[in-house]
Amino acid sequence: MTAPPRIGRLESGPRDTICDVPGVAVGHCTLAAGDVQTGVTVVRPHPDDLFMGKVPAAATILNGFGKSAGLMQVQELGALESPIALTNTFAVGTVARAQIERACREHPGIGRDLGTFNPLVCECNDGCLNDLQAHGVTARHYNEALDGAGTEMAQGSVGAGRGMALFGLKGGVGSASRVLQAEGTAVTLGCLVLTNFGATENLILAGRPLGPVLARRLAERSATGDTGSIIMVLATDASLSDRQLRRVSLRAAAGLARTGSCFGHASGDIALAFSTAYRIPHDPGAPMPAVRTLHESALDPLFHAAAEATEQAIVNALFRAATVRGFQGHELTAFLEVLPDWREPFGKAGRQVIQAAARRP
Amino acid sequence: MTAPPRIGRLESGPRDTICDVPGVAVGHCTLAAGDVQTGVTVVRPHPDDLFMGKVPAAATILNGFGKSAGLMQVQELGALESPIALTNTFAVGTVARAQIERACREHPGIGRDLGTFNPLVCECNDGCLNDLQAHGVTARHYNEALDGAGTEMAQGSVGAGRGMALFGLKGGVGSASRVLQAEGTAVTLGCLVLTNFGATENLILAGRPLGPVLARRLAERSATGDTGSIIMVLATDASLSDRQLRRVSLRAAAGLARTGSCFGHASGDIALAFSTAYRIPHDPGAPMPAVRTLHESALDPLFHAAAEATEQAIVNALFRAATVRGFQGHELTAFLEVLPDWREPFGKAGRQVIQAAARRP
Amino acid sequence: MTAPPRIGRLESGPRDTICDVPGVAVGHCTLAAGDVQTGVTVVRPHPDDLFMGKVPAAATILNGFGKSAGLMQVQELGALESPIALTNTFAVGTVARAQIERACREHPGIGRDLGTFNPLVCECNDGCLNDLQAHGVTARHYNEALDGAGTEMAQGSVGAGRGMALFGLKGGVGSASRVLQAEGTAVTLGCLVLTNFGATENLILAGRPLGPVLARRLAERSATGDTGSIIMVLATDASLSDRQLRRVSLRAAAGLARTGSCFGHASGDIALAFSTAYRIPHDPGAPMPAVRTLHESALDPLFHAAAEATEQAIVNALFRAATVRGFQGHELTAFLEVLPDWREPFGKAGRQVIQAAARRP
Amino acid sequence: MTAPPRIGRLESGPRDTICDVPGVAVGHCTLAAGDVQTGVTVVRPHPDDLFMGKVPAAATILNGFGKSAGLMQVQELGALESPIALTNTFAVGTVARAQIERACREHPGIGRDLGTFNPLVCECNDGCLNDLQAHGVTARHYNEALDGAGTEMAQGSVGAGRGMALFGLKGGVGSASRVLQAEGTAVTLGCLVLTNFGATENLILAGRPLGPVLARRLAERSATGDTGSIIMVLATDASLSDRQLRRVSLRAAAGLARTGSCFGHASGDIALAFSTAYRIPHDPGAPMPAVRTLHESALDPLFHAAAEATEQAIVNALFRAATVRGFQGHELTAFLEVLPDWREPFGKAGRQVIQAAARRP
Repeated sequence: MTAPPRIGRLESGPRDTICDVPGVAVGHCTLAAGDVQTGVTVVRPHPDDLFMGKVPAAATILNGFGKSAGLMQVQELGALESPIALTNTFAVGTVARAQIERACREHPGIGRDLGTFNPLVCECNDGCLNDLQAHGVTARHYNEALDGAGTEMAQGSVGAGRGMALFGLKGGVGSASRVLQAEGTAVTLGCLVLTNFGATENLILAGRPLGPVLARRLAERSATGDTGSIIMVLATDASLSDRQLRRVSLRAAAGLARTGSCFGHASGDIALAFSTAYRIPHDPGAPMPAVRTLHESALDPLFHAAAEATEQAIVNALFRAATVRGFQGHELTAFLEVLPDWREPFGKAGRQVIQAAARRP
Repeated sequence: MTAPPRIGRLESGPRDTICDVPGVAVGHCTLAAGDVQTGVTVVRPHPDDLFMGKVPAAATILNGFGKSAGLMQVQELGALESPIALTNTFAVGTVARAQIERACREHPGIGRDLGTFNPLVCECNDGCLNDLQAHGVTARHYNEALDGAGTEMAQGSVGAGRGMALFGLKGGVGSASRVLQAEGTAVTLGCLVLTNFGATENLILAGRPLGPVLARRLAERSATGDTGSIIMVLATDASLSDRQLRRVSLRAAAGLARTGSCFGHASGDIALAFSTAYRIPHDPGAPMPAVRTLHESALDPLFHAAAEATEQAIVNALFRAATVRGFQGHELTAFLEVLPDWREPFGKAGRQVIQAAARRP
Repeated sequence: MTAPPRIGRLESGPRDTICDVPGVAVGHCTLAAGDVQTGVTVVRPHPDDLFMGKVPAAATILNGFGKSAGLMQVQELGALESPIALTNTFAVGTVARAQIERACREHPGIGRDLGTFNPLVCECNDGCLNDLQAHGVTARHYNEALDGAGTEMAQGSVGAGRGMALFGLKGGVGSASRVLQAEGTAVTLGCLVLTNFGATENLILAGRPLGPVLARRLAERSATGDTGSIIMVLATDASLSDRQLRRVSLRAAAGLARTGSCFGHASGDIALAFSTAYRIPHDPGAPMPAVRTLHESALDPLFHAAAEATEQAIVNALFRAATVRGFQGHELTAFLEVLPDWREPFGKAGRQVIQAAARRP
Repeated sequence: MTAPPRIGRLESGPRDTICDVPGVAVGHCTLAAGDVQTGVTVVRPHPDDLFMGKVPAAATILNGFGKSAGLMQVQELGALESPIALTNTFAVGTVARAQIERACREHPGIGRDLGTFNPLVCECNDGCLNDLQAHGVTARHYNEALDGAGTEMAQGSVGAGRGMALFGLKGGVGSASRVLQAEGTAVTLGCLVLTNFGATENLILAGRPLGPVLARRLAERSATGDTGSIIMVLATDASLSDRQLRRVSLRAAAGLARTGSCFGHASGDIALAFSTAYRIPHDPGAPMPAVRTLHESALDPLFHAAAEATEQAIVNALFRAATVRGFQGHELTAFLEVLPDWREPFGKAGRQVIQAAARRP
């Protein structure tokens, strides 16, 4: 497979995925049968008991035309007590309940003497390839994704990404990581995206406005408008407060914008960020951690890493998503099938397309 | 039944419920069988096709330790396209899916060529009386509540209010309305609350700090801390923008505070407001309404009404909720059984309790 | 002087002012000459170098019809680097510049190699008694208030409170404190308010709706509508994160509501909260503190204290504000001059007023 | 002068400035004398009485490390009643007071019987070239900028842009416009930016990552880190609600990100948007307009235009800002002096710089 272009200046971690952040694991459950092309992806912040040892977290809602569950409590309490589940729009309720049932099995006191539990489910609409009304996703699929979570993760048309579209091409799950120095120590920031956005003619790949060329090639296929969403999950082992994590999460917007998104009207464009540097005990009697965060002025490299890792993760999703045919025979094609020559200047014709698109009338 | 005390200075509508706002209807489905003491309550903003003719709406999250679904999109788009469903914490996913399925039956294009649909489900935790892990609520219950919606609504231990607690007593659903003049025209503001909050010793009833007396009487029963939530739904026929509705929704906090709440840590304290004065078409081709809102300076009477109606609705819930026994034999008692003499000055002993509570050490 | 009624159940600190929080000092500069009835009040979080050792802080904007300066940066960075100055609406720019000049004198590198400086100035509109267009406040007055700051603070018609109105009576500066147990340790929460709000007929004093009686008595004077603002400054020595401080600041709304406010349309109703438990170094090279905050579930007593202390501080302002005559001969009268008999049941006539006000038509 | 590259696909208005939106005017007052290199820029939304006929407006605070005044009220009320003034960080108070005094001259009832007035002043820190502590800006300069406002505006090192830096080069004021179809009608969206941001090595010019080349050339001069701010003012004649304007304002972030910004930590990155399509009367007795906004689904072209116009305005600022020498002999150089060959591929050496910067270690 052709490697995707490198974005930015920072180094990646060894896997160039969110799993480069120690402790983070990702699992998928993919449903690919006829009209049902969908799935579940789970990001597990650490391998221990997440309900009893929550991680600091925050979210930025760039555009709120979405149906995610659980963000309100993350914003209020600055903590995440549930694995982050990604799925299709109609499956949010089902997966939220699956998370509750799982949590209750692991902690029978939930809903009784242990307090409640905040399921966290984010979604994009894969209705182009997946028959949403078939409600293909069940609790079992959430559990399979969670049980299969590991540090070697697949990307592309897998898990929740199975039915997703990206600039009129096949999208899906992508991931990337960046390593940087913060106050003299190497820290890692990883990003996992569920991509389902982008008007074809707006695609910018590593700075190159390929959208017009792409739109011409897709014309006889199915170019799309700028509807659809993206979920961006950022993880880091840097020691940050929830407020600092909120600031980091906002910077995912910069990476997203550089691929050609304007955070379209009909999108649930959401960024979540968490840190694995310390844990917040559920038990009021347990000792609270003594937290030494980074100084605020040390955040710029993390902001930069958040933007780079998000752009890279989107590009990775684009390069790794295989062609999928689904609901009502709709098909979304892999990027490299449509633009195998994406590194070329496109000769005179290509330049003309780009220039024509850029010329003032 | 003893009538609850009147709150404030404004007049009520004929029913003194949210249904005094023309077009608004409320329905309940109550589950009351052994360990399952829960239900669903639905507020329907108007009798027509709500998906095609949305109402302007807004929300204030006073405290976000809650699991409600759908608020993010209301905040982004300023519109409500779903009936407002209230239920228990663990049933949010189930009811959200029931709303989706119902919407798809009514509009088979949803999730296909009509866009998606934003279910709106708010919740409180009735785990004291209801076995949450029994997952008693199903799609059928949502549909029954919606199908039974009308303008003569029950209050108290019904619908979503079946298992709820209020200041250590039985709580549930309450409602009230206020009529006021806005720019020379009579308008109505109604409120429906799902009450599940309050530390016993903090109860203030119509300005009287009854909490300490109540706590003494409940001592051998089960006084509670200030955990638990409240959902406050405000409706008006005044013509307001979504921003103005957000401002109105915040004023529910004033009514809530006057009953003794401090918006406790472990609460999902949420206020939603909508206006029935105009509708926002789903169809991009349909003409947008020409909206003449109230002048900003005309909002104070609405703010006042929001506070009064919310406090009254809470008081009404307290007076109308019947004793319920449920999960593991827990029982929450009706206010009038514990304090039938609430109008009294409590003699010397009662005064002593109040004074002792108020005295500086 | 008649002592104001005690609000709530918690104990006060020794002074019952914000200065009970160790390190906090308050200073006033009062301008009282003919048409100029205004001033400056300063809250100094600790006696050391606040720019180099910032305190964690947060704010809640209940209603944003106000002209305060500096809140945006507090919300972004969660820290306060400037004394909190309170003054009249038109003096914000002047006082902000005075703060900058003072900071530059103390740290000549500000605006050069030390970064910038965030002045923090909150305001209410004292235009009823003070000729705003006279621009009476100058930099000197800010400096006098700051230089005079101490732990024995005056209340009432002093400092920024000189020209303020409260429910149609004379308002001004009030303060109170509450002591509570948090995780086994006594902590203090103090509140200072600058009160300039309230429709006369809405006044609730310690739970009693005195507004209608008051309105009758003021009828021949100058009852006011619910315009005007309140600034609420909360300080605590409890160890809280900026997110937790934001949560605490919101609870000031509960205390405010209980005095009869609905957070009126034309108000800048703002609550600020800071903690003195640790300091955030300006210098990026200085070691960050290791912060152990309270567990989230320990916040309820602080929320309760915030509501009580705010209500008490407002009541204290009402009782301590002396009659002032100012601009164009306008006069606002002290509460005790108008309602010296506020403890009485008001006999039959008084009851009739209250009942008539509360009766349904 | 070399024309700046064209950004994006949409057409510009005739001037390619914010003044293409009918009624909008811009004025500058430039201070350029030795250590004082600063100024004031004013955007006037329409030529009539703005206090009596306010325009709908909204703001997005991307990063709140800034000292702007007046945004809180814009966010609360959704309206702008003051010209938008831009200046340096230390001059905010002075210019806010100048706005108040001007408003009082035009409306002597302000602060008396006409309500108060919300000055709106945004700022960037020009301390590199300008001696902030000299407080060069006075009320006169605000008035000159306002009085000189017209539709033919200068760009670059003028007005508030006089002392600003951009990616280590000279920055300042830039502007651009885009024309688009919304529901069958041509509408214009214009943007004016005050640019003072950017780490040298992060510069992206029309998609090309020129930062590393630029950093090498500037090495012996003064490359800067990603500190500093940007103010982005968006105007449109499309009929939008304040909520819709908030959504539009957020999309300026996409344009900003594409130039290489990550919304750095030490920035006040703020976007304001207003519409000239209707006016909101100050007078409560005046009839409110009947507003027919665009359908929500028609916003995407406006979002796209906001991103394009913002990126173009930044590029225009970069190309038009002339070299300035100021405080302590510091100098910021014009882009075209440093990179006159910016269209070139930079030969082998240039490619090496870029590749080295982009290569994984």
